[in-house]
Amino acid sequence: MPDKSAVTQYSAINFSKKYDLFSEQWTPKVIAQMNNYQFKVVKIEGDFIWHSHADTDETFIVLEGQLRIDFRDGAVMIEQGEMYVVPKGVEHKPYAEREVKLLLIEPAGVLNTGDEKSERTAVNDVWI
Amino acid sequence: MPDKSAVTQYSAINFSKKYDLFSEQWTPKVIAQMNNYQFKVVKIEGDFIWHSHADTDETFIVLEGQLRIDFRDGAVMIEQGEMYVVPKGVEHKPYAEREVKLLLIEPAGVLNTGDEKSERTAVNDVWI
Repeated sequence: MPDKSAVTQYSAINFSKKYDLFSEQWTPKVIAQMNNYQFKVVKIEGDFIWHSHADTDETFIVLEGQLRIDFRDGAVMIEQGEMYVVPKGVEHKPYAEREVKLLLIEPAGVLNTGDEKSERTAVNDVWI
Repeated sequence: MPDKSAVTQYSAINFSKKYDLFSEQWTPKVIAQMNNYQFKVVKIEGDFIWHSHADTDETFIVLEGQLRIDFRDGAVMIEQGEMYVVPKGVEHKPYAEREVKLLLIEPAGVLNTGDEKSERTAVNDVWI
């Protein structure tokens, strides 16, 4: 450690505090970036649309609640403290019975609705 | 949803269950991969070594406990439910007073000790 006069206290990113900053659903907010990948917090409830991402995998981490992701041949349930990586090109449809708080990780520039455009398509690259 | 006979139940990755599979410290285990990035769980306690990663940022998410990362000009405290991205090329030294459970995210092939070799250097790409 350097002498005290030069010490900088860097700040971690707190997920709960980020969620407290907004209440709207379906609007991913960027909270951090690692190389060209972004970490996004989002609240969702109800049905998303079927979509896929042709060029990238997509990571879902559930921080609160329970998420189901439907695939054309089945589904995965993701509870708090769990993660799942949807492979690129695989059609999927997230669904939450009650509001779920998610952490998404994917390359910068990826739209939430992938190759589909819908009323669920959110503005990209919004930092919080 | 397809007809029931064709439904596959996919499995999420549960962080707690992964941690229950090992007790040794300082040995990152890969639990998932997104494109060329890996998610690794690791338990650490005490002092790591000063090191940096010349070519990539590195993400730390604290799932249990408290992590301090020292930098040459300061430090960051990362609590449970918080994350931090160490920029590429920045020298850092993780430290944990008591055992902390971490989720690391970085490109596949990145060594835990970066550009330094030490007794802390762990075998890479071990899946659990």
